[in-house]
Order: sequence, then structure tokens, then C-alpha cells
Amino acid sequence: MIEQEVITKAKQAKDAARRLAHLPARVKDAALLAMADTLLKNADDILDANAADVRAAREKELSRALLDRLLLTTERIQDMAEGLRTVASLPDPVGEVVSMWITPSGLQVGQMRVPLGVIGIIYEARPNVTVDAAGLCLKAGNTVVLRGSSEAIHSNKAITDVIACAAVQAGIPEGAVQLIESADRAAVNVMLKLNRYLDVLIPRGGAGLIQTVVNNATVPVIETGVGNCHVYVDSDADLDMGREIVFNAKCQRPGVCNAMETLLVHKDISDQFLPDMLDKLRSAGVEVRGCERTRALAPWAIQATAEDYATEYLDLILAVRVVDSMDDALDHIYQYGTRHSEAIITNNYAKGKRFLKEVDAAAVYVNASTRFTDGYQYGFGAEIGISTQKLHARGPMGLKELTTIKYIAFGDGQVRK
Amino acid sequence: MIEQEVITKAKQAKDAARRLAHLPARVKDAALLAMADTLLKNADDILDANAADVRAAREKELSRALLDRLLLTTERIQDMAEGLRTVASLPDPVGEVVSMWITPSGLQVGQMRVPLGVIGIIYEARPNVTVDAAGLCLKAGNTVVLRGSSEAIHSNKAITDVIACAAVQAGIPEGAVQLIESADRAAVNVMLKLNRYLDVLIPRGGAGLIQTVVNNATVPVIETGVGNCHVYVDSDADLDMGREIVFNAKCQRPGVCNAMETLLVHKDISDQFLPDMLDKLRSAGVEVRGCERTRALAPWAIQATAEDYATEYLDLILAVRVVDSMDDALDHIYQYGTRHSEAIITNNYAKGKRFLKEVDAAAVYVNASTRFTDGYQYGFGAEIGISTQKLHARGPMGLKELTTIKYIAFGDGQVRK
Repeated sequence: MIEQEVITKAKQAKDAARRLAHLPARVKDAALLAMADTLLKNADDILDANAADVRAAREKELSRALLDRLLLTTERIQDMAEGLRTVASLPDPVGEVVSMWITPSGLQVGQMRVPLGVIGIIYEARPNVTVDAAGLCLKAGNTVVLRGSSEAIHSNKAITDVIACAAVQAGIPEGAVQLIESADRAAVNVMLKLNRYLDVLIPRGGAGLIQTVVNNATVPVIETGVGNCHVYVDSDADLDMGREIVFNAKCQRPGVCNAMETLLVHKDISDQFLPDMLDKLRSAGVEVRGCERTRALAPWAIQATAEDYATEYLDLILAVRVVDSMDDALDHIYQYGTRHSEAIITNNYAKGKRFLKEVDAAAVYVNASTRFTDGYQYGFGAEIGISTQKLHARGPMGLKELTTIKYIAFGDGQVRK
Repeated sequence: MIEQEVITKAKQAKDAARRLAHLPARVKDAALLAMADTLLKNADDILDANAADVRAAREKELSRALLDRLLLTTERIQDMAEGLRTVASLPDPVGEVVSMWITPSGLQVGQMRVPLGVIGIIYEARPNVTVDAAGLCLKAGNTVVLRGSSEAIHSNKAITDVIACAAVQAGIPEGAVQLIESADRAAVNVMLKLNRYLDVLIPRGGAGLIQTVVNNATVPVIETGVGNCHVYVDSDADLDMGREIVFNAKCQRPGVCNAMETLLVHKDISDQFLPDMLDKLRSAGVEVRGCERTRALAPWAIQATAEDYATEYLDLILAVRVVDSMDDALDHIYQYGTRHSEAIITNNYAKGKRFLKEVDAAAVYVNASTRFTDGYQYGFGAEIGISTQKLHARGPMGLKELTTIKYIAFGDGQVRK
């Protein structure tokens, strides 16, 4: 039964993908605008469905953070509609010829951007992902099989019903937006192995979900997620700038993957830098877990362990370590970092250049907050997630990352010698 | 024991990768030239080791095709050395800034090409893969863990010993080129799950090997391989051009993935086109498996089944089908194709344009042989394989496909609002 639902819907998505791939931008854009309109028009029904999910979640005594992610409001629905309109306004990535050249045999060969095909999205409670993912996938010419968590099933169903209907009326092939409704985990397991119909899987959610997908999928996966990010305040740093950036990287939104989790401070400026910095963080409610030298300056701090350095807190908790040198900072980041976002604060040209070169991460910053690792901040106008793997896409993923290329070749009778 | 060998060597490769990533091109290029020299200098020892492999393979009565792939000669060693010299002469992909822009916050953000890290190559009998893969990986700043088949172990060991030694003497970090020597299949299973040390796996070999890797790996895989390729001769084709291309696509080298496996012919020209074409193929020793209409023109042909249309023969066998229309040709390719290489022969502008647009494959040709899907033919100067997946790389993969990008960002104190 469960298997049948997934296979049937994925096959419909695969069939729709063949036609969707060649639709002109104007049809796709009109569909995105119609989807935005229908969300607003049916906002009350969506809020009713969401209320049922929230009620059930309260009864199950789910955490406040989860309840917040699950909750929809009129404003959140407006944001979702606005997001679709923004995506509609972006250039269509499909059909762009990235490069073209003539080979020695006289063949004219080019790389053309084309859709990936069918994208499976496996995600947790936030119902807005349903809209964001569907909009981005359609714009890039892909059909989508959505599998949200059972906690959000009424919300997701209400949303998908109206946007899929609006999309079809605007000319998108029937079956392009699919929602797997089965609450059973087995549905996910079927998706993970469905290479026949799914071209790519993108998991969005907690570390547990992502690891399950990465470890069990035979469908190619784009891994997103864990960010154990560092800010290194160098001996040549502008200390005021350093304090602003450190505060921003930790406190502006601590629950996200590009927030700082460990602060590294060069020993030569730790006496000057840390006391004010730590007081400021403490006042903002940050729990500090420091090394010996940090605790000498802030005895109220908790002793940091190796486990602290390895932890993505996603909370108002910060590990702090004083290092002897830039080499030690680089070693620490190499050992504990998750290759997400790393920053150095320095006015020394050579050290900035070295940090950019040697740190292996999706995003490396000089004199800026790690919080900028984000598709909107980078100017992509949209984001389907932040890739923490190296294949295909790394860092914030926008529309281009939802495409692949094909080689197109114009000949006049060439045969291979 | 087996597990220990793989883990130890993969860890050494990971450690070496950190330094190798930042080596300048001149060091890497000098190492490739030194590797070429040492192959020639030690050719006799390598040939001796290869003779032992060939002897053992003969005793095990392995197929002639496999013996041919296993066999090394002085000329093949010279080709391997020449291949390394060519790779040394190519531009270094590492460090290239693919694009750079300024965000609304004033951050200067760019995408810089960087190595993938550690690449695991799992391959079958051909010992030249050992050299090709090591050379390409090193040039792109990656370390490599090689796992050849047990049939080639003496050859692979002799080759790896001398090239790894030459590389280190030229300044490549120790441990950058690793060969897994255990003959046990369990070694492969360890590699498949070694996400801690391996960044990417590339399987090269038969369909069985590739499916094992794709189905069981948790390390990201670049799938290479199966090509069920078609040539469609349209009603508006230049029939002489069509015959040359069809003959080339089938016969020039039938055992490779970009060779044609099924010929599709429009019904309006099948009477004119097929009799000569099929005679020519028959004279070249090609076994034809045709549809009813094909057999009406060539009664000697065997009846084709749906299974024939789905088969990658890799041999002098060809399925032939007469189709009623271009739509039917497109449907056939959609149903049976493996998204590798597809060609149309036509002088009709609109049909050529439509075929290029609608066929979903790594490479799509108008009026040229499918045999051109090849890194050398495309002018990449090298090839690590032909990707048949859509993530990361599609089609022939050269040096660029052995890299990823990282975002580098130059700020002056930016914090996120």
C-alpha cells in the first residue's frame, strides 16, 4: 500500500518531467504567480488545516521549537506567496548554454543547462518548505515528490492541493507536484531506493534525518545541514570589528547552521579582546564553555571539552578557545569543523589570504560574519538548502544547482577516426 | 586485517590531501613528468609483474577480452607515460575563480575551484587506469585510493610503487597515491562506507561492479558506464552521411559505451536506406536483430525483441527498428535509452533543433557519430570516465570534474541584519 503510493506518485512525476523540461519560462512563471495567488485566496483553509496539525502536536507534547516551526500565520502564508513571486521574477536557468567550442574534428560542442528531472524532498515540520521547494523545482524545470513529516500532514496536504491545482490550470503538466501522504516511515525508505523515478534526493531537517537519507539512499543525495562554524580572531584583528562580527555570528539567529559554534582567539590579543566580548555575550544570555585560558579571564565560564568543540549547539551556547598561533587555529578548524562556514578577523593581508586558501569549507570569510552563507544574502534570490557535500553543489543552492548540463553537438557528418 | 589496510591507507590519503590541495601547479606538473619518466625507466619490472598476472589469468582461463585488457606491452607503458605528460601540460584547474560579484551588503563573494579531497577509484582489469587515475587526481589536487581487481594486482603494485615514489621525490606529500592490495572483496565494502576519509568514489568497469558501488556506497558516487545509444535516421537525412555515421557508430569500436546499440529509421526512407546499410553492416560481421519491417527488407536478420532494445551489447550486434515518425523515435529513445549518447541524422533544421532540445542524455548529436562522447574528442586533454548520472558531472569528465568550488568572501566588517 505505502510502496504503491510512493511508486505511483513518483512515476507520475517522472512522466510529467519529460514535458515540464521543455516548457517555456513564461508558462512556468505564470504558474508560480498563480500558485502565489491561490495560496492567499485559500489562506483560511490552509490555516484551518494547520490548526489541526498544531492541536495534534500540542497533544503529543512536542517541543516549543517544533511547534513554532509547524505554526502557520497569515503573515507566513503571505511570505510563502511572496517567495513564489520572487522565484518567478528570476531568470530561467534552463536552456542556457554555459560554453560552446569547436573540436578538432569540426564538431561544435556546447554545454546546455537542463533540468535534473524529478527531485525528491524529504523534510521536517516546516510547511513553508512545501511551497519553497515546489516553486524552485518547477522554475528549474523539475517535477517534485515532497515528503514532509507526519506532524505537518494536514498543512502540507492543504497547501499542495491548491498549488498543484493552480499549476496545472496555468499549463504545468499534471503530476508535477506530488505529496506523499503516508505517515509511515516506510514511505521514506521506498523513496531512498527509487532510482527508476527519482533523479535526486534533498533531505532538509535535523542531523538524524539527513544521516538516515545519506546512509540508506541509492538515489543520488545532496547532503545539507550540519554547520560547526568558527570565527578566528587573529592577533592583527580590528578588535571592535571582531566583537561585532562574533556577536552577530553567535546571537543574530543561533538556531541555524551558519551560526558560530566555537570562537578561536589568538593569545596575543585574548586579554584585550575576550573580557568585553564575553561580558557582552553573557549579557545576551550566551552560555560560554571555555578553555583554561578563557576561564582565567572569565571564571564564570564552564570548562570546555573536546566534545564541546565537536558540537553544533544551534543554541545560545559558545565554545571559546585561546590559540597560540594561526596554525593552531587552522588545525582546530581542520579537526573539528564540518566544512560549512569559517571566518577570520584580521587586517593582515597575508593571513587573510592564507585563511581563504587553506580552510576547506563551503564558505570562507575574511572580516565578515558566518551568517552570510545563504542564497538570499549571496543574491541568488532563492535557496533550496545549503549543501555540505562537495559533489554537484557546495554551499547555498539556488536555481542553477537544481539543473545539470547536457552536451549538445552540431556536426556535418563527422565520424570517429 | 582487510579493514585495517583500507582505513590506514585512506587516512594517509586524507592527511596528504590537506597539503596537496595547496601545492602550486609547477610542483604537481614536475611530479607528473617524474612519474612518466619512472614508468619508462622501470618498464621491464612492470612488464615482469604483468607477465605474472597474465600467467595467472590464463591458468584461471579468463576470457580473451579480459586478457587483452590486462596485458601490458612496452607500447602501452609508453602510452601511459605520454598520458601523464599530456595531463602535466594542461592548465591547473585549482584556484580558478569561476565568478565573483558584490552582494548588497558589500561583501565580495566568489566561487573558487578547489580539489574534491580524496578520490576512491574502484576498477577492473586494465592496469593503465592506475596511472591515468593517479595522474588526473594529483593534477586536480586530490589524493587517490586505488582499488584494482585482483587479476591485475602485481601490475598495479609494480606501477604504484614506482609512481608513488617518484611523486614523493618531486614534492607530492607522502601517502597521496594509495593502492589497496587485499584481494578480498571486503576491501571494496569498506571503501563504500568510508565517508570519514573518502570524498568521492568513481567506479570504472562492468555494469555489475558499478551497480554494487551505486547500491551500497554511502560515500558520494559518480556513476559511469552503461550506454544504450541510438542513431535515428530521419526522413530528411542525407542518406550517404547516415550510412557513414551509422557504420562508424556501430563498428569503429563496438565494445565501448558510446557505440550505437540500436538504429532507428524513419519509414519514409527505410526502403532506400536500409538494404545497402544492412548489407554493409553484415559484411562487417554485424549481427542484425530487426523489427518486422526491417526483416521484410533483410530476411536474414533475427527478430528483435523488447529485450534487444534494452540491451547494451558492447559487441557487433545491432538492433534495428523502423519507426513511423520522429515522435516514435523520441518515444523509443525515452523508453529504452540510458541517457548516454543519442544522434539524429537530418537536414531538417526544425527536427534537428527539436531532437537536441527534447532528448535527455549526456550528449546529443545532430549529424555526427555517437562515438565522439569522449574527453579527448571534446578537447579536455584527459578523461577520468564518462558520467551517466546527472549530479556534479554529466558526460566526459576531465580535470574540472575532479574539483568542487568553495565560496570565498572578502568583507570589511559585515554583519547580518
